[in-house]
Amino acid sequence: MDMPETASRWTVQQGLKVTYPPVTCIRERGNAVSVKYGAEGGVCAALDQLYLPLQCRSHDVFLMMTDLLFTEKDLVTSLKDYIKAEESKLEQVKQWAEKLDSLTLTATQDPEGFLGHPVNAFKLMKRLNTEWGDLENLVLKDMSQRFISNLTILRQNFPNKDDETGAAKALLRLQDTYKLDTHSISTGNLPGVDQGKLPYKSTMTVEDCFELGKVAYSESDYHHTELWMAQALRQLDEGEETEVDAAAVLDYLSYSVYQQGDLETALDYTRRLLLLDPDHQRANGNLKYFEYQLAKRREAEEGEKAKEDGMREEGRAESLSR
Amino acid sequence: MDMPETASRWTVQQGLKVTYPPVTCIRERGNAVSVKYGAEGGVCAALDQLYLPLQCRSHDVFLMMTDLLFTEKDLVTSLKDYIKAEESKLEQVKQWAEKLDSLTLTATQDPEGFLGHPVNAFKLMKRLNTEWGDLENLVLKDMSQRFISNLTILRQNFPNKDDETGAAKALLRLQDTYKLDTHSISTGNLPGVDQGKLPYKSTMTVEDCFELGKVAYSESDYHHTELWMAQALRQLDEGEETEVDAAAVLDYLSYSVYQQGDLETALDYTRRLLLLDPDHQRANGNLKYFEYQLAKRREAEEGEKAKEDGMREEGRAESLSR
Repeated sequence: MDMPETASRWTVQQGLKVTYPPVTCIRERGNAVSVKYGAEGGVCAALDQLYLPLQCRSHDVFLMMTDLLFTEKDLVTSLKDYIKAEESKLEQVKQWAEKLDSLTLTATQDPEGFLGHPVNAFKLMKRLNTEWGDLENLVLKDMSQRFISNLTILRQNFPNKDDETGAAKALLRLQDTYKLDTHSISTGNLPGVDQGKLPYKSTMTVEDCFELGKVAYSESDYHHTELWMAQALRQLDEGEETEVDAAAVLDYLSYSVYQQGDLETALDYTRRLLLLDPDHQRANGNLKYFEYQLAKRREAEEGEKAKEDGMREEGRAESLSR
Repeated sequence: MDMPETASRWTVQQGLKVTYPPVTCIRERGNAVSVKYGAEGGVCAALDQLYLPLQCRSHDVFLMMTDLLFTEKDLVTSLKDYIKAEESKLEQVKQWAEKLDSLTLTATQDPEGFLGHPVNAFKLMKRLNTEWGDLENLVLKDMSQRFISNLTILRQNFPNKDDETGAAKALLRLQDTYKLDTHSISTGNLPGVDQGKLPYKSTMTVEDCFELGKVAYSESDYHHTELWMAQALRQLDEGEETEVDAAAVLDYLSYSVYQQGDLETALDYTRRLLLLDPDHQRANGNLKYFEYQLAKRREAEEGEKAKEDGMREEGRAESLSR
């Protein structure tokens, strides 16, 4: 994926430059077949229509998405079968481990006494030549084959990267059209929820918000990047458990506010990032760059002010000399 | 492995013949390197010495076997680490399954209502394009690598098939030398246990007895085959849980008693086998053969008796006519 267009506008200044976080939003599945839910026509259009009355919605897209819900339900059933099989296998392994744990503990405390019983010696030979091999086969037994095979078949009709990006963009458009704030969307409190028009309230995780922010970022849409990264950060600050790294969120945040001209806030976010990760290379570079730019701006402002003051003084002196 | 020598003595008689269970006792490990515990010199000799006073035992073999006990203890530790890792992975999969289970249940009950919430639609796309793939990676993650690698390294010094067979044969010799019955050996009640000379009483499973019986069978030692298969059957009858098939035990039993000339008992065991497995091909053949042999023997005995009676009658008539 290319870097956002705006990036090319930034060149080296005084050996300092601003660098931007990578544009790596939605991953492509290895075996994605085709865009079935169409970034331009399908899900996105459907999402755009979601607030329209039922009769105006695209019937085909809803049917397709309904099919996906049932497909997903089948997958969950298959996954539960796998879990049962894996648990049963693990239970067998655990029983063996428990038996051997107490046996080897006894045996190693008094090897001579233990091996003095001829049956123990025979059973040791049998365990080492045969039974550990049987256990190895059990451990190596793949219980996931059926589930993986089901997933492989069913995912041929799954939406792909473009569909996911399309759905994200549609959500961003919806946000603008209905002037929704990120917090309301993320907590599922959309207009209509209270009146029962949207019976299935759905909340967004830090990861969902981060994903939306990255989609906006990949479109060089720094306004929405800021909104969704800030929402992700808010949920992180509230203690939500996630695998998303706060430093990564701050990285996108500082760059997106910088792109909107807010140097001070960009500097604040960068400083916060460096508290979390003092060795963050890009943040260290950006910190210097932002400080340099701010100093330059202040200098220019002071120069401007001094010039204005000088002109004012000059004007006053002139009027006095008249 | 060759068939037992005695097998060649049996030829087709009247279209009927007795067939014997396969000689497949102890399995060879794929990567067995060498006979370290020596069927002739090592473990077997050590087992033969087990009832000798301590100072007479082979010190080297005991050191080797003690090493094996500690190696086995290390393996158990490695196995427990694998179990922990696998449990933690499975816990993650279960959490996902539980979340998706309740989600898909709600969604499929009212697809239109569910998809009416734009966040649900976006999250469905995200799950199907990205998250199911992440779950797949988790399911396919191999947690056993370290344990399998440890096992592969450590087993290079494990005893092999010959050592296991050797230990089994030594136990059979010990049984003869000390005139021990199979039940006492199997329940670990060897002479010396009560006096504290053998502090670590060890019991034998059905599988252990079956294995010993098969070793004896592979040596055409039908006496010990019968003893150990009968012990295996006894423990099966007592309800011990095992993967050993009672039909297989009866198969060896009937053939070994037949080889010792006890046709009636061979027939009884064969009938019992056929109750468990009416389609057992060899048992069906042997049943006919044993019945035929018994009928022939009875016929011969009756002929013999008639001949004797005839001679007696003749003698009496002769003495009367004198």
